[in-house]
Amino acid sequence: MAVKLEQITVPTRGIGDFVEITQQVDDVVGRSGIREGIALVRSRHTTAAITCNEPDPRLHADMRDAVHTTFPASEPYRHIEEGPDNAVAHLATAMLFGESTWVAVRHGRVDVGTWQHLYLVELYEARRREVDVAVLGE
Amino acid sequence: MAVKLEQITVPTRGIGDFVEITQQVDDVVGRSGIREGIALVRSRHTTAAITCNEPDPRLHADMRDAVHTTFPASEPYRHIEEGPDNAVAHLATAMLFGESTWVAVRHGRVDVGTWQHLYLVELYEARRREVDVAVLGE
Amino acid sequence: MAVKLEQITVPTRGIGDFVEITQQVDDVVGRSGIREGIALVRSRHTTAAITCNEPDPRLHADMRDAVHTTFPASEPYRHIEEGPDNAVAHLATAMLFGESTWVAVRHGRVDVGTWQHLYLVELYEARRREVDVAVLGE
Repeated sequence: MAVKLEQITVPTRGIGDFVEITQQVDDVVGRSGIREGIALVRSRHTTAAITCNEPDPRLHADMRDAVHTTFPASEPYRHIEEGPDNAVAHLATAMLFGESTWVAVRHGRVDVGTWQHLYLVELYEARRREVDVAVLGE
Repeated sequence: MAVKLEQITVPTRGIGDFVEITQQVDDVVGRSGIREGIALVRSRHTTAAITCNEPDPRLHADMRDAVHTTFPASEPYRHIEEGPDNAVAHLATAMLFGESTWVAVRHGRVDVGTWQHLYLVELYEARRREVDVAVLGE
Repeated sequence: MAVKLEQITVPTRGIGDFVEITQQVDDVVGRSGIREGIALVRSRHTTAAITCNEPDPRLHADMRDAVHTTFPASEPYRHIEEGPDNAVAHLATAMLFGESTWVAVRHGRVDVGTWQHLYLVELYEARRREVDVAVLGE
């Protein structure tokens, strides 16, 4: 059994950006030498989430809309020193998408399912985001 | 330390079905020989979720209702090639329930808490679902 | 590689209480002797959640409000033997916050990100809550 811990950097282009990170996570798995086990993925931010989903831009648009219908920017939020968008970004990260997930590692590769891809979801503004990837196994 | 990775198959009867998988996960733990550690559970699908909750059918009905009040099928979704129900299933999996969780393993058994059971939640239609179970420990 | 599994006790003061548990989780990491790896955190309850967020009371108030606008206590819930608040607590735990997360362990400490803290979120009433903490690594 071994553990490999890495931090990957994910630049984003602005609010609502779905940045695919499957390859970057797979590269960490490759460098770990681990053939069978798990890869855990976690955004080190409270306004950028992790999700595993289909690579359909229309689905990503539905998810962006779902954030705004669930938590409208027009609500009287209290956490407003960085603007109401920032409160919404916090709520959507912690209460809708979540900031972490895990996937199986088989034959030295991440095994996410047939139509699935790992994404960092930018919920605030263009940033350089940091993501922790931990690989455990044999 | 050892790792055991298995895929279990979970047939579902249709949208809104809560299929208990506690025993199947516990069986993987038993086969692993691991006595103390963790069991991670992950749906390999984007329209079927994992949750850990009480075995009360009324609570499951409340959760089904909560999906539909949060993401009504009447909204103009863009991801509609498989019908609006499919968009809702994606949103509910990724943004409400989540597709994965973990539980402690103690004395060679999953230790989920007094009133808790592990469920796969079918959010789309009757299917044969695949769930990854990873057990790590000693 | 080693694994350390502990249960920590978290008293709460009532519905909506955010109880910081970063230090308690860090203490488990310290006792484990593990320097590099992961710490997984899971509420052993279906009406108390785990979240990782900023220590801003206004943000926590926004999150409390978000629970009640998403799942109003005035809805005709079916899981009502412990009152409608209890149904809302179940929905908010499983469908909004989630009951578990993981964080990286580096240099023998939890490494949660610059402005982040781990919280147990009480969603029902003043209770003594139990949280599973698992540390895996080297």
